[in-house]
Amino acid sequence: MTQQYPTSLGTSDADTITLLGQNLADDLMGKVGFGELTLWMVTQRRPTQSEVRVFEAVLVALADHGFTPTAIAARLTYLSAPDSLQGALAAGLLGGGSRFLGVTEDSGRFLHGVIESLGPDVPEDDAGYDALALVAVQRARAARKFVPGLGHPVHKVRDPRTPVLITIADEEGLRGPHLRLFEAIGRVHPQVLGRTLPLNGAGTCGAVLADLGLPLSLLRGFALLARAAGLLGQLAEEQRTPIANDIYLSVDRNATYVAPAVSTWGDDPPDPPPVGSADDLPPK
Amino acid sequence: MTQQYPTSLGTSDADTITLLGQNLADDLMGKVGFGELTLWMVTQRRPTQSEVRVFEAVLVALADHGFTPTAIAARLTYLSAPDSLQGALAAGLLGGGSRFLGVTEDSGRFLHGVIESLGPDVPEDDAGYDALALVAVQRARAARKFVPGLGHPVHKVRDPRTPVLITIADEEGLRGPHLRLFEAIGRVHPQVLGRTLPLNGAGTCGAVLADLGLPLSLLRGFALLARAAGLLGQLAEEQRTPIANDIYLSVDRNATYVAPAVSTWGDDPPDPPPVGSADDLPPK
Amino acid sequence: MTQQYPTSLGTSDADTITLLGQNLADDLMGKVGFGELTLWMVTQRRPTQSEVRVFEAVLVALADHGFTPTAIAARLTYLSAPDSLQGALAAGLLGGGSRFLGVTEDSGRFLHGVIESLGPDVPEDDAGYDALALVAVQRARAARKFVPGLGHPVHKVRDPRTPVLITIADEEGLRGPHLRLFEAIGRVHPQVLGRTLPLNGAGTCGAVLADLGLPLSLLRGFALLARAAGLLGQLAEEQRTPIANDIYLSVDRNATYVAPAVSTWGDDPPDPPPVGSADDLPPK
Amino acid sequence: MTQQYPTSLGTSDADTITLLGQNLADDLMGKVGFGELTLWMVTQRRPTQSEVRVFEAVLVALADHGFTPTAIAARLTYLSAPDSLQGALAAGLLGGGSRFLGVTEDSGRFLHGVIESLGPDVPEDDAGYDALALVAVQRARAARKFVPGLGHPVHKVRDPRTPVLITIADEEGLRGPHLRLFEAIGRVHPQVLGRTLPLNGAGTCGAVLADLGLPLSLLRGFALLARAAGLLGQLAEEQRTPIANDIYLSVDRNATYVAPAVSTWGDDPPDPPPVGSADDLPPK
Repeated sequence: MTQQYPTSLGTSDADTITLLGQNLADDLMGKVGFGELTLWMVTQRRPTQSEVRVFEAVLVALADHGFTPTAIAARLTYLSAPDSLQGALAAGLLGGGSRFLGVTEDSGRFLHGVIESLGPDVPEDDAGYDALALVAVQRARAARKFVPGLGHPVHKVRDPRTPVLITIADEEGLRGPHLRLFEAIGRVHPQVLGRTLPLNGAGTCGAVLADLGLPLSLLRGFALLARAAGLLGQLAEEQRTPIANDIYLSVDRNATYVAPAVSTWGDDPPDPPPVGSADDLPPK
Repeated sequence: MTQQYPTSLGTSDADTITLLGQNLADDLMGKVGFGELTLWMVTQRRPTQSEVRVFEAVLVALADHGFTPTAIAARLTYLSAPDSLQGALAAGLLGGGSRFLGVTEDSGRFLHGVIESLGPDVPEDDAGYDALALVAVQRARAARKFVPGLGHPVHKVRDPRTPVLITIADEEGLRGPHLRLFEAIGRVHPQVLGRTLPLNGAGTCGAVLADLGLPLSLLRGFALLARAAGLLGQLAEEQRTPIANDIYLSVDRNATYVAPAVSTWGDDPPDPPPVGSADDLPPK
Repeated sequence: MTQQYPTSLGTSDADTITLLGQNLADDLMGKVGFGELTLWMVTQRRPTQSEVRVFEAVLVALADHGFTPTAIAARLTYLSAPDSLQGALAAGLLGGGSRFLGVTEDSGRFLHGVIESLGPDVPEDDAGYDALALVAVQRARAARKFVPGLGHPVHKVRDPRTPVLITIADEEGLRGPHLRLFEAIGRVHPQVLGRTLPLNGAGTCGAVLADLGLPLSLLRGFALLARAAGLLGQLAEEQRTPIANDIYLSVDRNATYVAPAVSTWGDDPPDPPPVGSADDLPPK
Repeated sequence: MTQQYPTSLGTSDADTITLLGQNLADDLMGKVGFGELTLWMVTQRRPTQSEVRVFEAVLVALADHGFTPTAIAARLTYLSAPDSLQGALAAGLLGGGSRFLGVTEDSGRFLHGVIESLGPDVPEDDAGYDALALVAVQRARAARKFVPGLGHPVHKVRDPRTPVLITIADEEGLRGPHLRLFEAIGRVHPQVLGRTLPLNGAGTCGAVLADLGLPLSLLRGFALLARAAGLLGQLAEEQRTPIANDIYLSVDRNATYVAPAVSTWGDDPPDPPPVGSADDLPPK
């Protein structure tokens, strides 16, 4: 028997292209937005306009953060290989790993783990969420783990994206248990940690995406898609106002040659410090 | 003097995030769509709603084409390294090169070259575009080059995306010289080439993006962004209904071991056949 | 004060190129092999000829395994973007993650964890290693974890690479505690697990590299370097005897279109099954 | 009929692993070096020891050039995603495109084009090569093209790698027509170009690899393999003596925010300047 490969995404014949069971040309193009289609392809269910608005707000929040390591890597790769735009874009996305783009996923997973452990008995009010959050933060502290989504290297008091995302989710009737738990963590953590940290935007995005019911294993993927658009902006700017060669020269000219130290053989380097509580930016 | 790195994209301070001169939280999130923001970041000018509609129609047209080589490569990479979603996405995008995602860019460049050579005297009517197209196709044929955007391995008579894109551009008042020239090529090429080929969707997207005034050197980037969304759909489906291991096994089990042929040393392989006239799919 | 960037690798001036404190042209080229230089660059200490022989044996053992998912992904990417060899190579390497190239690193880390816990009191004979191995395997079983490096999907009784690597390490006086512990695991695990599994080649490579004192955090990197050479072989063969288009067509033609199932929204896919005990090949 | 996929690389059964028709464990491991195996996999013919020595000298010459854009991109990617070593390595390799790693391939192709046009009548002495070189350089100048391999941003008078590579090739009896033509270009170009430029190392590597009979379409691949080893050295050093965060901060802190200039919409950026005559380093 020949192997079959099932799919519900795209297919085509001589006259028609089908995507998600729809006629691509007649039913999707010009009628469905790009964010809407993305959500639809990932979930294989047509999203509501409320879901689309919340989802696009998240993508907008995550699209660009200036000269991040990933933006710099993409520009340097474009400098080296301007014939391969796909290589520069890929190089930028490859920085989207655990450390600087992972907060969205980590936050969604942490919140989902707490919610899921409740079974069907989700809290009914803020007091219920506060009690739940208190236990979750205490457990994380006892295990010497960071609570994902708490703290930000620049926005030390308040991340301006957080209240706006909460408002938009609320307006659209999509402020669900993940986000409400996250808000509760924002209220109760000072009494456990002894200091007040802001709920950062990347963590809030994770809560919001989890409330949309999106697969936790793909949350990082939405941050990557948003960043792909931001990287196009960075590469367009690099074409108009190049800086990559100056970055390269500033590193090369300030290199200090140090004779190899023999004693380093066999020393395993320390693991990189956790950045768990940070947003998607390294500490400054 | 310290090196300075200018940018007009993102920046932030303790209380505010600025993107494109706007307050990200107050002015963009929830108010600007993801496609609109992408267009804005690339051009650094706020697009009109007409431009956004046309742009998103292009992204929707290019998002997914089923089991393309890039989709298969992304799924296989996810099979091998499920801990690194960014790697699977990057692997899929790296197939977005000259051959199967290049038609959009090639078409835009070809049309722009013809239009630009006219100076300010753009044709006023279809007859003028037909005359221009006739010369362009004759020149390409004389140089033994393909006209990018003509022909499709599956849609041999008519690509269903093409008339829809023309209609949308027309509705929005954005059916400009690139697209009109491309339409003219569709009318006149049979008298030069001796057979009738369809204007394919990827080529039409190139014409439409060029009429939006987008940088030719980034046209491939928009196809890559659209494909990034499609790859998220493919990877979400791979998580639910995995096929990559079956693909791998079907190749591995049907491998035929052939003793190395000594005589091949030093033979340079032939260049891959041109796929210039095709859409973004290899011939079937 | 200007930022300085220290390095002990390469530097150059008008007349001289220095690498690792050596004159590249006069002292390294033609005198130092590629494997030797690699080891030297990573450790910043000149290796002995014994270390080089063992290291190169590991690279040879890991270079190619036929039509692995990574080899197929590289070939498909080359089909799509033949203008960008670096993209095809990168796509192949991106499959070198936790699942199919991770055994070397996992094995090295597991063994190192056990050895390190002993402090200076390394066993003196096989009986001592057997006792240590017994505890390690029992602990892994109690924690419901795989012992990395045990078992192989194809070589169900004996991986032919394992005894050869042990012999080479022994000949060169480099059969150290990691490898001896790994051998002991091979002897004692049946009494804990109730069945006999082979020590696989990738795991043995991890033990050998750890005995060379190489950083555990780079063990995966050596497997990637070996695989980079193998991928060049795969791409050279793809140029001469292309199969990627046939692979693509076999998937595309056997696609079965399934209407999207609405109920999948919000279901998180199960985590991929662990492949911990396997070699770098998926189960057949 | 089931599709078959021929290969002459690796295969295995329960007891044996075969690579290139050899028994991997018994005939290759510990007996064949890594450079030798690489050459063998690419050509599918066992190389001579002379070929191996010349090939490894090329890999050593190209392995590391300090803080190149690719090395910086790899370090920044590792900073962002330390969980994915393969991503950092891939990001570094993706800079191996036309501009900074392409000289080796460009030079080999240029020289091969000249040699091939001769048919069987290769020059017999230096005078013959000088005459051939003169025509080739004149033609390149008339076509306003660079001669690949001429000139270097740092080694303005003499690249120290060039004479060493020539000597090694000569010692091994592998100083063939490509290298002899390249040497002749070094002698005659001043009378055409009006100034004296050095033959750079990357170009010499291209000539030497072409004389080894390696496929021109893979020459870039050997530079990538050499660079993969160099990137492992860079990443090992980044683990011990991290600088990527300092590079990131130096860019981020020296960012200057500039209000978006509306007029840039639709301006296509100029093509990047050609770097054809340079080595694999950008101009300083």
